[in-house]
Amino acid sequence: MFIVGERINASRKAIRAALEKLDATVIQAEARSQAAAGAHYIDVNGGTFPGREPELLSWLVDAVQKVTDLPLCVDSSDPAALTVALPKVKQAQPMINSITLESERFTTVLGLAREHKAKLIALCQGEGLPASTAESKVDLASRLIDRLTAGGIVLDDLYVDPLVFPLATDPLSGKATLAAIREVMNRYPGVHTICGLTNVSHGLPARKLMNRTFLVAAISHGMDAVIADPTDTALMAGILASEALLGRDEYCMEFIQGFQNGKVV
Amino acid sequence: MFIVGERINASRKAIRAALEKLDATVIQAEARSQAAAGAHYIDVNGGTFPGREPELLSWLVDAVQKVTDLPLCVDSSDPAALTVALPKVKQAQPMINSITLESERFTTVLGLAREHKAKLIALCQGEGLPASTAESKVDLASRLIDRLTAGGIVLDDLYVDPLVFPLATDPLSGKATLAAIREVMNRYPGVHTICGLTNVSHGLPARKLMNRTFLVAAISHGMDAVIADPTDTALMAGILASEALLGRDEYCMEFIQGFQNGKVV
Repeated sequence: MFIVGERINASRKAIRAALEKLDATVIQAEARSQAAAGAHYIDVNGGTFPGREPELLSWLVDAVQKVTDLPLCVDSSDPAALTVALPKVKQAQPMINSITLESERFTTVLGLAREHKAKLIALCQGEGLPASTAESKVDLASRLIDRLTAGGIVLDDLYVDPLVFPLATDPLSGKATLAAIREVMNRYPGVHTICGLTNVSHGLPARKLMNRTFLVAAISHGMDAVIADPTDTALMAGILASEALLGRDEYCMEFIQGFQNGKVV
Repeated sequence: MFIVGERINASRKAIRAALEKLDATVIQAEARSQAAAGAHYIDVNGGTFPGREPELLSWLVDAVQKVTDLPLCVDSSDPAALTVALPKVKQAQPMINSITLESERFTTVLGLAREHKAKLIALCQGEGLPASTAESKVDLASRLIDRLTAGGIVLDDLYVDPLVFPLATDPLSGKATLAAIREVMNRYPGVHTICGLTNVSHGLPARKLMNRTFLVAAISHGMDAVIADPTDTALMAGILASEALLGRDEYCMEFIQGFQNGKVV
């Protein structure tokens, strides 16, 4: 399972406060703890301060690179912020979070991905409302995959996010997302699927339980990457159990070692 | 989710001891606690004492019926034990655990199911080795469903158990079982699928985690019944989360109420 650590995100109060003061200590502690917990990439998101995102995203890239060798997932819905921040990345193969089918964003972010030879998260989102049914998610995924591979992105660098919506307001979104994951993985062998977990539980109690339940279900339908909190022990234990369950952990050695190391609880 | 409480089983040390002394107190406490925890049926299994199973199974039926109105799942691989114990059942519609394609067992248990108008658990097991691949599980399931419905059992009373094997020795069994569940539920709308959970984690550490991870995955592939321990709070919370995730819990009201009642933790 490919894990993008989500904790350095301006939507979190502690990160917003650190960005406000340009306090690298908090940011770097989050980078270190996620690396220690098993993240493969560290996501950096500097949104929420109008007009300052290019500057703050670049500052985040610099701050995180000082304390970890892990590659970065540069996260912004604003192509201008990505354009400024990506050249700061020193580690091999950055990841870009994210591209959509929205016309201008598509063109600019595709250019950036090619220029920086980046891995790319592609959201199932066109010019209109995001896709809510399985069929519309698969349709947008297909268009993204076809256009991005035609544009020079190799399938193995492509991470399709079918976008799950909060169950509290869209009760069928979980089921639609699982079906879309299965269909995309069947239709395009070699592509990856990924999801931000936290959306699914928005507005519900026991959010961590719901997030990890969704993650287990999504892995069992073929999802092979996730944007999540690697310091959440129960979540990570669920990943190890799921990998063993799906025959991706020969004789359950990782699971058993995880238990011996206190990671499987 | 249809839950058959598994705790009154002679393979458990405490139950074996109670059977040895014909001590109904322990048995009845297990029946009460499983009923309180949300079981829909109470499984009773009196195996492991050679030659005494018909007597002990009948005694279990009597003991449990004194303390709960829940219907019983009469559990034996020995048709003779089922034949003696089933007439003792007073509650409406017993469940029989289980029938297989083994020739003599098939004939006798089908007759019992018809006579007692019982729900029936059908294991994917023929005369040879149990089915290990998804294809062989689906093949046996199809033969069971076709022969049992031809024999007068309605689809809604039929619970197919694809038989999951221990991951520690058969790492591909989880994946094969999930695929079989999906295919059987797609091919026979109206039939049920069920699984005994504990087999999957045999020989592994952190068994409860593995059992509930498998359960979440199986529910997400369509399984709608389970033989499990309803007093396992984390397991039951996983069921509530899974039901909400799959759109079977409108606006997540059961999940939210479960949280308010301390059942979702």
